[in-house]
Order: sequence, then C-alpha cells, then structure tokens
Amino acid sequence: MSDSSTPPIRIGIVGHGNLGRGVEIAVTRNPDLRTVGIFTRRDPAQVRPQLAGTPVLGMQALAAQVGQIDVLVLCGGSKADLPLQSPELAARFNIVDSFDTHARIPEHFAAVDAAARAGGTTALISAGWDPGLFSVNRVMGEAMLADGATWTFWGKGVSQGHSDALRRVPGVAAAVQYTIPLEAAVEHARSGARTPLSTRQKHRRECFVVLAPGADGQAVREAIVTMPDYFADYDTGVHFVDAEQLAREHAGMPHGGFVIRSGSSTTGAAQVIEYRLQLASNPEFTASVLVAYARAVQRLHGMGQHGAKTVFDVPPGLLSRQSAEELRRLHL
Amino acid sequence: MSDSSTPPIRIGIVGHGNLGRGVEIAVTRNPDLRTVGIFTRRDPAQVRPQLAGTPVLGMQALAAQVGQIDVLVLCGGSKADLPLQSPELAARFNIVDSFDTHARIPEHFAAVDAAARAGGTTALISAGWDPGLFSVNRVMGEAMLADGATWTFWGKGVSQGHSDALRRVPGVAAAVQYTIPLEAAVEHARSGARTPLSTRQKHRRECFVVLAPGADGQAVREAIVTMPDYFADYDTGVHFVDAEQLAREHAGMPHGGFVIRSGSSTTGAAQVIEYRLQLASNPEFTASVLVAYARAVQRLHGMGQHGAKTVFDVPPGLLSRQSAEELRRLHL
Repeated sequence: MSDSSTPPIRIGIVGHGNLGRGVEIAVTRNPDLRTVGIFTRRDPAQVRPQLAGTPVLGMQALAAQVGQIDVLVLCGGSKADLPLQSPELAARFNIVDSFDTHARIPEHFAAVDAAARAGGTTALISAGWDPGLFSVNRVMGEAMLADGATWTFWGKGVSQGHSDALRRVPGVAAAVQYTIPLEAAVEHARSGARTPLSTRQKHRRECFVVLAPGADGQAVREAIVTMPDYFADYDTGVHFVDAEQLAREHAGMPHGGFVIRSGSSTTGAAQVIEYRLQLASNPEFTASVLVAYARAVQRLHGMGQHGAKTVFDVPPGLLSRQSAEELRRLHL
Repeated sequence: MSDSSTPPIRIGIVGHGNLGRGVEIAVTRNPDLRTVGIFTRRDPAQVRPQLAGTPVLGMQALAAQVGQIDVLVLCGGSKADLPLQSPELAARFNIVDSFDTHARIPEHFAAVDAAARAGGTTALISAGWDPGLFSVNRVMGEAMLADGATWTFWGKGVSQGHSDALRRVPGVAAAVQYTIPLEAAVEHARSGARTPLSTRQKHRRECFVVLAPGADGQAVREAIVTMPDYFADYDTGVHFVDAEQLAREHAGMPHGGFVIRSGSSTTGAAQVIEYRLQLASNPEFTASVLVAYARAVQRLHGMGQHGAKTVFDVPPGLLSRQSAEELRRLHL
C-alpha cells in the first residue's frame, strides 16, 4: 500500500445519476481516495448522497474548487452532457469521462485535448468497460496475436439504448431489453474460427414490455421486431409483463460480455485470449473503472503528462494504489 | 498501420530453443519488425533457423552489433541464463526477457535496472503470460474491484517444471505432466465466492510416464504421488505409456489458465472479471508476447524512458503497431 502519510486524492463527482452514485460508492472502497463533493445541475437540496455528509453543490460552485480537487469524475451522458462539460472542465481540472459515442470519439478527443493542453491539465476520455477495458483487450489481443480474429460479444445484460427504443414504441408503458450473446457464436470464436458471423448469429434480444392501457399487443410486438437498427436484424423475443413484475424482476442493471482474440500456432491449432465480464451492476462497475483511472490521471498529471489521454495511454501499474516496487514483488 | 516509410524495428534473438524459435516466427507476423540475427552459445553452424536466410551468429558477435539492433529478445532460461545475460546485455542493448523465478524478480530487476541506467538503455523484464499478461490482469482486476478476491488457475497444460521432476524419479525414462484446473474451483471463483480453496481443490495433475526397462511401476507411481511440493498436495494420476505413444500424443506444449477477480455490487451480487488463455503452443504464445513488448521497449527508449521496466509500466497502446490516433478511431 502507498505510504499512509500521502494525502488522499481528492475526487469531485459531476452528476449524480446511476453512474455518479456508483462513483460515490467506489471511492469509499479505495482508502487513498476521498470525495470532496458532488456537483449537480439540479437543486442540490434535492440530491441525496449515498453517504451522509458528502457535500452536494451546484455546478457554479466548481469555480471556487480549483486547487481543492485533484480529479473530477464526469458522470453525465455522452449525448448532451459530456461534449460540453468535458472540454469546459478540462480547461481547469484534471478529468475522467466515460464518453461512449464511438463515431464522435476523435472530435471529442480533439476538443478535450485542446482544452487540457491550454489549461495544463490531464483529461482521460472514454473510460469504462466498452469503450475502456474491452478496448484495452482488443488492442492487446491484436498486438499479441498479430494474425488472427477479434470478437466482441455483449451481455447477458440490459441495454439502456434498446430499452429506450422500446419505450418510444406507441402502446409501450415501460420496458427493459436484454442483449444475449449466442452460445454457439461464443464457441465459434473460442474455437479459433475466423469465418464472420451475421448480426443475427451473434446476439439475440429479449424484451420485457408493459403495455399501455388499451394497447394492441400484436401491433406492439410487430413494431418492435421490425424496428430497423435496433431489432430487425436480430431474433427478438417480446414478453408482456405487468408493471409490478417488471419492477420486481427486471429492475437490476446487469451486463457484461466477452472480447475474444484468436490466432494460430505453427501447427494451425488455436491460441485464444478471452476477456469476460459478468457484472451484477453495470453502473457500479463502470464507476469502479472510472475511479481507478482517476487515480492514474492524478499520477500522469504529477508526471507532467498533460492533454487528453485514453485507456491506451495508461500503464497498468498507475491504476493500482500499490507502488511499482510492491507490484513487482506481489503480482509478477 | 504505422507509416510504411518507418524503418522496421531490428530484433536480435538470443538463444534458439523453443522460445527463440517462437520469436523468429512471431517477428514474421509483424511487418514493422525484422530479425537481424540469432545469437547462440552453441556452434552457429549447428543451429538451423526457422526461416532460411536468418543469420546465426555466436554470442561474441553481439559486440559488433551495437547500433545495428534496436531490441534484443532474450530467450534463455531463468535459472542459469537470464540472471547473467540480462544485466550484461542491458548495459549495451535494449532488451526484453521472460525471467520467471518469482522470488528473485526484485533482485533481477535491481541488477538489470542498474545496468540499463548506466548504459542508457531500456530493459523490460518478466514478460510473457505468467508473469506477464496474467500479472497485468491481477493488478487491473484489483484496481477495478478494490474489495474482492483474485484467483489464478493454470492449465490445462504441460508444466515443464513438473515434467522435469518426473524425469528425475528413478525408473522413469520419459514423462509429460499436465496441470489441470478443477472445474468446481473455477466455478467457485466465478461465483464471486471468497472462501479460499486448498491446493488440492484447485488443480489436479496427470502424469504420462514411460518406464525404464525393468522399472517397478508401483514403486514409480508411489514415488511420484508422494513427492513433496510437486505432487503430494494434489490428486495425481499416473498413466504408463510407451515411448511411441508419448511421442505421438504428448509432444505438444499446450497451456493456459485463468485470472479471475471478483468483487460485489451494493446489492451483494457478484461483479466478475475473467481473463483466460487457451494456448495450443505455450512457447509460441510467450514468444508473441515478448515480440509485442519488444516493440513497446523500442518506443519507450525513443521517449527517453531508460532503466528496467515491467509489464506494469507499459501503456497498452505502445504494444500495437497502430498509431494512437488509429487506436482511438478503431478500437475505443
């Protein structure tokens, strides 16, 4: 463990949805970190911290916190919050975000990088598990097995994007969608096979739907299974449940998945690397990842590494609260 | 891919056993790398490279290669070769080794670090998969799930150390030993359980043994299963086979294993990270890992990071031949 006389790393949490609440909990599990405060756009009096005593402040209070916070963990959404917040806050603070709109990562990186370089801060974007830990495993797998195939499977777990899409279907009062990797596809990947699989061969989707009063179940089902992009390319199950059953059986946010990289040895037999997550709580795990990367950001900043960073730029040892000497002695 | 006008990274291979042969093959799968030569303590005329045309030279020829080689990949053994070779060669070359005598890693690191700092070189020790990729996953798992349990299982695979121990038993002419993780133990780890398991509960050992002429099978079996450290603490199967069957069915060098880290969410349900390798050829995979880390060593050296390093010090992006911009665009 680090020298206990080292002062704790001071964390600010921006946003207090599922992810922000998860960060609050994750910080308590790391004795070298301490939450300075939760910063919210809502009325702070309406935000109840997980831990009694954690200060809840308005966003405008951040201005007075420069020098009081080592790393801000940004817990807003990728669509509306982070494209503005990350560059704005990176100008004054070290930050970590979980920006996950894949196609916009280059522009987000550029905006954050400019702000962080100008401000002399360190800003890690797109942390979490995908993008994040899965990305690290895709890159390391391809580096180790240069000639091979990479597969990513998601689930079994709740997809917020697909659940949201269900809720937009006329006649749907509430809904939860599970993404489920098909076992035959995972075995195909593990076998070292390189033949591509179709979208339908890789995952199926199961929807638990509460109908609005008077809604036509058959029409709702048809609207779901034919929905382009979200469901039409998959085998999709639609299960009608009542609101009580949905709340009782489908309120959790489990998720996970697999990154599998295969190559072949000179005999042609398979070399297979598999990275798997099975998560009872997706937001709590994502929060744990953000907190570990916040520690690394503080250290990178201390080493003078300013600007935007990604998980690809972070040596694994900087994620641990143990020293390099301890890591070599205990974990090699 | 990197700019194709960048000259290839020039690799020297020291030692040409199973690992050195694997490095020769791995280099061919990475277009940004090139093997300059194989350096051997044997008579070079007796060493047959995997690829016709690869120069084979005596160790003394290395002296003239300073400036001609970017990274030496050391493929000797941890017992007798690397404790001498790594510091000696790190004084003049960037190196990667696979030093795996756990208890001696701190002293090996110190010796290599002193030599590399004096020589202005970069020297990565203890690369491979355990120590190596498994170590990275242990450290990252503990950083992400700060309150939890870490499990490492090995196999199914051939353990050279245990096979060597079998061959030292009087009456044994030849032998191969498989280490096999017990499925119930792996499931225990995956369940998020933290109750420790005994050595016997985690792995079993299967030995394929060719008896010397006139040897007493019952006595050999008894000597094996009661051997301290190696077999006494395990359920050990001993199977007598003839030399032809051993050569036909047990000549491969498969290996692999699991690193499993579990923690719990606030509901008490499990969060589980699992990293698994299934390797048709242990030496070829280890060689692939060394070659990816050789690329990273060349880059660290270019960044002025001299001295001894371990896998904990290497950002994942430096292992890839793709640029940081390409990695962000393609893999996040």
